[in-house]
Amino acid sequence: MTMSPIDPGLIERHNADRRKHLDADYASLGERLSRRGVDIDAIARKVSAFTVAVPSWGVGTGGTRFARFPGPGEPRGIFEKLDDCAVIQALGRATPAVSLHIPWDKADPAELKGRADALGLRFDAMNSNTFQDHPSDPNQPLSYKFGSLSHADRAVREQAVAHNVETIRIGTAIGSKAITVWIGDGTNFAGQADLGRSFDRYLESMRAIVAALPSDWRVFTEHKMYEPAFYSTVVSDWGTNLMIAQELGEKAFCLVDLGHHAPNTNIEQIVSRLIRAKKLGGFHFNDSRYGDDDLDAGSIDPFRLFLVFNELVGAGEALDRLHPTHMIDQSHNVTDPIESLIRSANEIRRAYAQALLVDRAALTGYQDANDAMMGSETLKNAFRTDVEPILAKARVDAGGAIDPIAAYRGSGYRAKVAAERPASVGGGGGIV
Amino acid sequence: MTMSPIDPGLIERHNADRRKHLDADYASLGERLSRRGVDIDAIARKVSAFTVAVPSWGVGTGGTRFARFPGPGEPRGIFEKLDDCAVIQALGRATPAVSLHIPWDKADPAELKGRADALGLRFDAMNSNTFQDHPSDPNQPLSYKFGSLSHADRAVREQAVAHNVETIRIGTAIGSKAITVWIGDGTNFAGQADLGRSFDRYLESMRAIVAALPSDWRVFTEHKMYEPAFYSTVVSDWGTNLMIAQELGEKAFCLVDLGHHAPNTNIEQIVSRLIRAKKLGGFHFNDSRYGDDDLDAGSIDPFRLFLVFNELVGAGEALDRLHPTHMIDQSHNVTDPIESLIRSANEIRRAYAQALLVDRAALTGYQDANDAMMGSETLKNAFRTDVEPILAKARVDAGGAIDPIAAYRGSGYRAKVAAERPASVGGGGGIV
Amino acid sequence: MTMSPIDPGLIERHNADRRKHLDADYASLGERLSRRGVDIDAIARKVSAFTVAVPSWGVGTGGTRFARFPGPGEPRGIFEKLDDCAVIQALGRATPAVSLHIPWDKADPAELKGRADALGLRFDAMNSNTFQDHPSDPNQPLSYKFGSLSHADRAVREQAVAHNVETIRIGTAIGSKAITVWIGDGTNFAGQADLGRSFDRYLESMRAIVAALPSDWRVFTEHKMYEPAFYSTVVSDWGTNLMIAQELGEKAFCLVDLGHHAPNTNIEQIVSRLIRAKKLGGFHFNDSRYGDDDLDAGSIDPFRLFLVFNELVGAGEALDRLHPTHMIDQSHNVTDPIESLIRSANEIRRAYAQALLVDRAALTGYQDANDAMMGSETLKNAFRTDVEPILAKARVDAGGAIDPIAAYRGSGYRAKVAAERPASVGGGGGIV
Amino acid sequence: MTMSPIDPGLIERHNADRRKHLDADYASLGERLSRRGVDIDAIARKVSAFTVAVPSWGVGTGGTRFARFPGPGEPRGIFEKLDDCAVIQALGRATPAVSLHIPWDKADPAELKGRADALGLRFDAMNSNTFQDHPSDPNQPLSYKFGSLSHADRAVREQAVAHNVETIRIGTAIGSKAITVWIGDGTNFAGQADLGRSFDRYLESMRAIVAALPSDWRVFTEHKMYEPAFYSTVVSDWGTNLMIAQELGEKAFCLVDLGHHAPNTNIEQIVSRLIRAKKLGGFHFNDSRYGDDDLDAGSIDPFRLFLVFNELVGAGEALDRLHPTHMIDQSHNVTDPIESLIRSANEIRRAYAQALLVDRAALTGYQDANDAMMGSETLKNAFRTDVEPILAKARVDAGGAIDPIAAYRGSGYRAKVAAERPASVGGGGGIV
Repeated sequence: MTMSPIDPGLIERHNADRRKHLDADYASLGERLSRRGVDIDAIARKVSAFTVAVPSWGVGTGGTRFARFPGPGEPRGIFEKLDDCAVIQALGRATPAVSLHIPWDKADPAELKGRADALGLRFDAMNSNTFQDHPSDPNQPLSYKFGSLSHADRAVREQAVAHNVETIRIGTAIGSKAITVWIGDGTNFAGQADLGRSFDRYLESMRAIVAALPSDWRVFTEHKMYEPAFYSTVVSDWGTNLMIAQELGEKAFCLVDLGHHAPNTNIEQIVSRLIRAKKLGGFHFNDSRYGDDDLDAGSIDPFRLFLVFNELVGAGEALDRLHPTHMIDQSHNVTDPIESLIRSANEIRRAYAQALLVDRAALTGYQDANDAMMGSETLKNAFRTDVEPILAKARVDAGGAIDPIAAYRGSGYRAKVAAERPASVGGGGGIV
Repeated sequence: MTMSPIDPGLIERHNADRRKHLDADYASLGERLSRRGVDIDAIARKVSAFTVAVPSWGVGTGGTRFARFPGPGEPRGIFEKLDDCAVIQALGRATPAVSLHIPWDKADPAELKGRADALGLRFDAMNSNTFQDHPSDPNQPLSYKFGSLSHADRAVREQAVAHNVETIRIGTAIGSKAITVWIGDGTNFAGQADLGRSFDRYLESMRAIVAALPSDWRVFTEHKMYEPAFYSTVVSDWGTNLMIAQELGEKAFCLVDLGHHAPNTNIEQIVSRLIRAKKLGGFHFNDSRYGDDDLDAGSIDPFRLFLVFNELVGAGEALDRLHPTHMIDQSHNVTDPIESLIRSANEIRRAYAQALLVDRAALTGYQDANDAMMGSETLKNAFRTDVEPILAKARVDAGGAIDPIAAYRGSGYRAKVAAERPASVGGGGGIV
Repeated sequence: MTMSPIDPGLIERHNADRRKHLDADYASLGERLSRRGVDIDAIARKVSAFTVAVPSWGVGTGGTRFARFPGPGEPRGIFEKLDDCAVIQALGRATPAVSLHIPWDKADPAELKGRADALGLRFDAMNSNTFQDHPSDPNQPLSYKFGSLSHADRAVREQAVAHNVETIRIGTAIGSKAITVWIGDGTNFAGQADLGRSFDRYLESMRAIVAALPSDWRVFTEHKMYEPAFYSTVVSDWGTNLMIAQELGEKAFCLVDLGHHAPNTNIEQIVSRLIRAKKLGGFHFNDSRYGDDDLDAGSIDPFRLFLVFNELVGAGEALDRLHPTHMIDQSHNVTDPIESLIRSANEIRRAYAQALLVDRAALTGYQDANDAMMGSETLKNAFRTDVEPILAKARVDAGGAIDPIAAYRGSGYRAKVAAERPASVGGGGGIV
Repeated sequence: MTMSPIDPGLIERHNADRRKHLDADYASLGERLSRRGVDIDAIARKVSAFTVAVPSWGVGTGGTRFARFPGPGEPRGIFEKLDDCAVIQALGRATPAVSLHIPWDKADPAELKGRADALGLRFDAMNSNTFQDHPSDPNQPLSYKFGSLSHADRAVREQAVAHNVETIRIGTAIGSKAITVWIGDGTNFAGQADLGRSFDRYLESMRAIVAALPSDWRVFTEHKMYEPAFYSTVVSDWGTNLMIAQELGEKAFCLVDLGHHAPNTNIEQIVSRLIRAKKLGGFHFNDSRYGDDDLDAGSIDPFRLFLVFNELVGAGEALDRLHPTHMIDQSHNVTDPIESLIRSANEIRRAYAQALLVDRAALTGYQDANDAMMGSETLKNAFRTDVEPILAKARVDAGGAIDPIAAYRGSGYRAKVAAERPASVGGGGGIV
């Protein structure tokens, strides 16, 4: 039996007050969809089956290089983070898995597994960290200031490889089946490093990591245009990422973070290309306007999120074979992280539900006839549909809340943990 | 013997007036370079050997969708274009080859070859055109409004393939050894076309074109982020281009146009990646601040142009094996096209000369020591060197002019052809 | 009585088939909105009262510098353009006014007025054109190749001023009350013109134009980041535009074209700033991903369009005093222009309707409490509402069609005019 | 007498070894410049007179939200920072003033003044900080998490105003004459705050700060597109900044940080506009490719830096009346901060020297004749001139080093302070 940090009775009472309107809205939407030939229950079932992992670090307040403004009741370690993740899952029912970050979440694997089992959670892809120094860690005497897997010094590269191997080992013990490798390696000045030799060194290091993967594991490499490096970045774009996955072989796939591209980039086309190349590994969901802003999914450009899911749904079996991973990767600087993660998971499901509503036969017909107007409108019609009744139905049927943010606020959870967890000290680091 | 549209005596007199100062400046620079261990004559020899092709369409005035403002004496056909190209070569001595565009430059191959030989010119890569309709061409009854090589309709694709095959045939007859394929295919609306199926159709068409290549030919595919399509473009980025070149096999290479990337893109790293992938086919040189602005090379960001050449020179033998093609692709809207092409070829040589000055042994040492400051300064020192005396020396030794723009203005060529070539009618097309 | 190019009986039959579902959907939406305390009929009335002007040139097929692919039945002059505009209004009932462009639409003012009256149309802001040469116009002997209102040569500036004054004179005769001035003046190279002196000359010219304005007229100046100039543009951004409006006095206001900004720009904040400065003159609506793509409004980023209207609705009386003008400015390259304009007007009304649904009292409360989550959700709730029943109701009550695109296709109008209007010759201009 | 942290004898010996070549290079350059009608000594005198302030925080290692990798011998407080600033000035002779940041640099004003006097330094503009919380400061009990000068809560705004007033008071005591106000206020989500009301509150707060300015002080407000806020920023662009300076009156001026603009922005035109508006207050110099990267001035796009100075030099008396302030604002993440500041000051002087070489009479002539080619080449000729001999001459004549980076490395200063100053603990903050 799952031990829940949220009283199930509270959720029941919350839903009881809202059930009548939900049923009416679901029926009304169902009627409208049936006119389009869509069975609302079939959509609801697919939505129910769609889940997205939450990042362990996402339940803490994020920040920028200028400052971090902690909120009350921040989790002080991985076990409190898991508690918060369980709240998100209890109310939203879209996030049964958590993605750990090593060394931040280092703990006894058996204890991790035990706590997750008790909370009804499981572990998604592991994340290694070679973009920071960990001076207190005796396994990491060398600095990553000038890179990690691509560092000019072989000893640093070996240390970074060893850290990834250790992360895989921990993941194996807790039931994970994949590792995501994102590095900050790059340069701030033309001439600081050789662009070609750095890439060669990176590939050599990655081959060593791939060699350490269990047979049923995958590795996801993640590209990013810039930050923390501001002139060049070793794994900067999907083209580079594709070269990496091709070199590393059948266990290697490309991870797409929606905020890691150049301005104006058509991300859904990258998704399409990676599906064709059989190298789409999955997503880090978030939203952004400027750079890697790590805002809540769908908050800046909800149509773009829909278009990404339109590619995924449209790919059909080609995607099924790839079974990409879905994870949220956000920085919650001004909201309660639990609320942002509940909302974001729901927005991701919203985009998925809307994409399921696209009339694909009609779309193909318009496309083959070069009817740009109706091809465009076919997507817009699906996007404009207010699918919230479907999302709420999926939640409530699985034991979640009709209005999970309201239910969360009603639960008093944040106040409770604020009382239990002393405030972390310090805010900004004076980095300008 | 070459028939020159510029009186050699004029060039001689021009140089005579300037020779003393050039010799002094060359000697002075040579002395400074020798302190750095560099032999100026060796640099000058390499510069002399470096050439870049000019595009036949570049000698006409360009324009935008808003208007085209023709200049006096515009060439009315390919033979007058060749005359103008010969002027550029006569004065600058960096551009012995011309790149033709079919059907714009369609003419009897023997006549083309004969005129080029007479002018001391040769033909570089051919360019096909399936981004426009040519209503008067009986071979092109179908419209490219909705695409060409990726069109939903097989008949349009076949027409586009046939046009490329014809372009190869013409090129074969005039001594070209490559074809550059740029298409405008893409969409203005999400849903207008299926991103994946469009790409599959493009690849199928390209395979047919590759099958038609003579054994000693190469094909260059060119990516571009956007324009004329404003939602998606089939060959949009270097990642897509790499996939294309990989699928098409050993004759296929990627062409990099400096203005075809997303804002902020690090183009020199793309160059480095394509060299590693053994798929760098060459360049369309120009400069840009916003989009595909097609401005004169080095006029907006000369340091970026230098950094591209820094990759090329730094790649050494890996690049030699690829022997990439170099071409200018610019739109001269407000300058005399002949002047812009003379200048641009010189700027490209300038970047090359500066890249040759980089102390590569020192650079490698700084890079291996993570000395970001000195790595950066090593490049900047080379870039800051005023290499104009080397460029002028290379020109003058080959029969060109010390100050080719001044010599051109002094020649009266533009006034002469303005008198001979009636002004083209019409300007803007009312497209807003 | 209005002479309509679309048979009213056709619209009636079209609506009869769809009326039952519309009524049901409107009632169902009304019920859901009433739960939020919103009176759907009040929203529908406001939507009915909101109109947007169409540009005369928008009913022709647009193009790019690479090519223009005309469609069948293109209007050959302003009177056929007005016919097409009347179709748009007959079906959509959101676009009773047309914006003319001089000299493209030059005709006898009395005839223009008469035809518009007969079609039930009126004239919105006039547009002058000094970004093209008009060689056949005896009033324009001088070229705008190097600028118009900011040209270095006083004679060219005077010619451009005179053209604007003539445009005002024509507008006065046909009932317009404003002129929009957009110029292409700028440079392609640093050094081509002095940035400060060019601006001074522009201001001097504009003062002469303002002096010619009738007392009840306004002038709208329009900024644009780039194109056709690719290094600098005289009226490049809203800061420059604000300086202009301040210098020109109380008749001068800033026009915001949604596609004329730098990548990532927050346009709705510019709208807010211009309202505060009492200088918001109005909009050119369209959508874009890269540059001035001139795509259909709301087709790329519908949430952005909503956020612009959220500022307008939120400004309340401050905006009413400014009574900004609303116009579509798009380039329809791959769709039937009539369809795109019907759709775009509807999308603009959609954004307006959604903005009307924002619970402003709640929003203010969340904002004052720094509740970023609920502030954000308050806007998203409004945006997610499918307001199509409101838009359709507004159309049908005013005599338009429930599904205007379908009704248009059913009308056979395009086939009819295709038979009457010979195809325009030629496509692309060979500008690359 | 100035107490120098660098042994003057060391500099003398350093220069002695290099003097011969410098004299030769200076003479050779002088000869070439004299051919252009330029007196090299006059240029050198102007360069000598041009100085730029260094930021106190710039001598510490910067970082990103991902990590900070401290270097050896980091200054532990303002007095050690002043020591490092004195090294920069001793070797480079371009940076006699330091810009303080409160509360980071809070100390007894008399002691600050005394130490600066002893080191031969003075204080430039003060900087306030309301983008971070300072929990240990009893004057700042309220958090800036949701803004400072524009905060919804009056009490927070008053606290932020009081902090600025205190900063002015400290500055007055140490001889500063200006305060720079940069705030991080903004939002991460549409709806989080009202864009108009936030701006009104900001202006109200700023009026209170202006009211506290001594009569001979100026205030510089600094715009920035984004970061730390990722949806909207209160002072986001130069248009907003201009509105601010206009509202705040004659003591208020706009500060331009080169890295705070949208992609592709033409910054030099903004400079020109602000000069015309009589509101250019000065600069924060740095370089960037992506966002506010804070890289070393001129390291990414040296031509852009030159073009900014071309506007400044070209403005002549109009600029003199504004006497803008010049400051470096960079984040040194991978270099020795002292080296980066020495180099950056030199790059800024380089751009200034190159701008002085522009033949302005010729330029004006080309511009008036619309000779885009020669206008462009006139600027490029100046930019291409290797002015390092002039910069070195200015340094050495003022007591600095011919090669200041080499002299610094030879001095052993870093090793000395590394021994004296214990390493700061901790690196990354786990903010992702």
